[in-house]
Amino acid sequence: MKHKFNELDWINLLKNKVPKSRDVLAGIGDDCALVEAPRKNALLKSDLFIEGVHFKRKDLKLSTIVSRAVSRVLSDFAACGGSPKFIGISLGAPGYLKPKHLREILKEVIFLGRKYNFSLIGGDTARAPKLFFDVWGMGFADKFISRSNAREGDFIFLTGKLGARKFDEKFTPRLKESQYLVSNFKINSMIDVSDGFALDLCRLLKESRKGALIHKAVVPVTRGESDFYRGEDYELIFTVDKNERKIDLLKSKFYFLGTIKSRKFGYKIEDKNKLSNLNITGYTHF
Amino acid sequence: MKHKFNELDWINLLKNKVPKSRDVLAGIGDDCALVEAPRKNALLKSDLFIEGVHFKRKDLKLSTIVSRAVSRVLSDFAACGGSPKFIGISLGAPGYLKPKHLREILKEVIFLGRKYNFSLIGGDTARAPKLFFDVWGMGFADKFISRSNAREGDFIFLTGKLGARKFDEKFTPRLKESQYLVSNFKINSMIDVSDGFALDLCRLLKESRKGALIHKAVVPVTRGESDFYRGEDYELIFTVDKNERKIDLLKSKFYFLGTIKSRKFGYKIEDKNKLSNLNITGYTHF
Repeated sequence: MKHKFNELDWINLLKNKVPKSRDVLAGIGDDCALVEAPRKNALLKSDLFIEGVHFKRKDLKLSTIVSRAVSRVLSDFAACGGSPKFIGISLGAPGYLKPKHLREILKEVIFLGRKYNFSLIGGDTARAPKLFFDVWGMGFADKFISRSNAREGDFIFLTGKLGARKFDEKFTPRLKESQYLVSNFKINSMIDVSDGFALDLCRLLKESRKGALIHKAVVPVTRGESDFYRGEDYELIFTVDKNERKIDLLKSKFYFLGTIKSRKFGYKIEDKNKLSNLNITGYTHF
Repeated sequence: MKHKFNELDWINLLKNKVPKSRDVLAGIGDDCALVEAPRKNALLKSDLFIEGVHFKRKDLKLSTIVSRAVSRVLSDFAACGGSPKFIGISLGAPGYLKPKHLREILKEVIFLGRKYNFSLIGGDTARAPKLFFDVWGMGFADKFISRSNAREGDFIFLTGKLGARKFDEKFTPRLKESQYLVSNFKINSMIDVSDGFALDLCRLLKESRKGALIHKAVVPVTRGESDFYRGEDYELIFTVDKNERKIDLLKSKFYFLGTIKSRKFGYKIEDKNKLSNLNITGYTHF
């Protein structure tokens, strides 16, 4: 059976619709894109978003699927203290996708590009049994923030409330917040909450070979403790050096959660002066 | 049903097995990879390789599937006169993939990295109904060669014989040939034969807004004219400026096919002094 569009339609659509950018020297339609990188150190990232695994087609509008697929990658750039610059989209296209769907996909990516200041440099497409996106890109950071650099005594913060967003909504990757933090404070480590607050916090601790003490009463939740284990919040967990002087300013703008401890201390949560172990579960894509 | 491996297994495997590289400053396990780019201008590329679309699982060994998925992207870097530097792999993993399959996949990519001098910087994985790879990467070119810059009077060449390779084999992307050509000759345009000689030649001509005269007798085929329309040769078609002095050297090393003509001339093939139109068909992934 012939499909309603082919690879060439996609490339032609990209060629006609993608805004020209000064730093994309050659792009769509050639074997590779040629871009001008503003700095020597580059961030690289890809992220899969697959129907039936990461989302259900019937739950989401196509523009929301695209927005989330792209925003997940932007959130990763934010988590490293960086910004996106060039984004490519590899699209697995099931038979039901029609040219109007392609236009809808592209419109959303171009909208996001304007909003978050990146250039779409193209990407591959091919038929696939289920709709999927592999969004990949290149970005830059004045200062790279790793998840593995938390230090004992660091203050632990969160950029926003857990569980505040619905699963079927677009979300705003915390690029602005990340830039503000990195430019103004001594940020030692950072991670985004993609698979659940507890799980992603523990990833940061594990990579940093540290423990933590979290005060349950100050963790901002919407529905309760279940928000600790829910994925796709896309807020940032970050740790601030204990010698940071503007800690009160940070406390006025973000949520203070607790303190980085030694590895031996473990992952502890304090509730009404009682300590218990932080339960580590979250969402995995298998 | 629980699968036999999860995302963390993959990341841990990558962490343990991927050779350290001086220009990968932070990488596997963090939200983004941080790399040191040797030059200001970068090449970016992604390419999908999907079970049931680009390959059948039963026809190919897993290591061959991986090799081809990666080599297709390397071939695109070659087609631009460039070299790969950092490669990421997004892996769609069906239920039958076991840890030993992951190790096999990784072993092949690391082997290719050593052979073609790129660093594996990670990549995402998630469950998928069919096996697929989205291979993406960043590379560099001293001089970027576009498919859209063929000029009237250019000599048209091919790096190797069409139809010489079997579909179920690994292939060698023409990176060495590309570097030799770009460093030593006035190459105006280049493209790799991924979807068939006739189709890819016509893409180059169309993008360059030119026509061509091809001499059928000198096109190197294995089985006959059917090789014109067969995909996945991964030889390079390139055009050389008419003022290039070392044209005889090129003719001794590569296959001379004909000449770039005006757009008005069209796409013509000469056979025993008779001209006919070049039949444009090839393989498309829809």
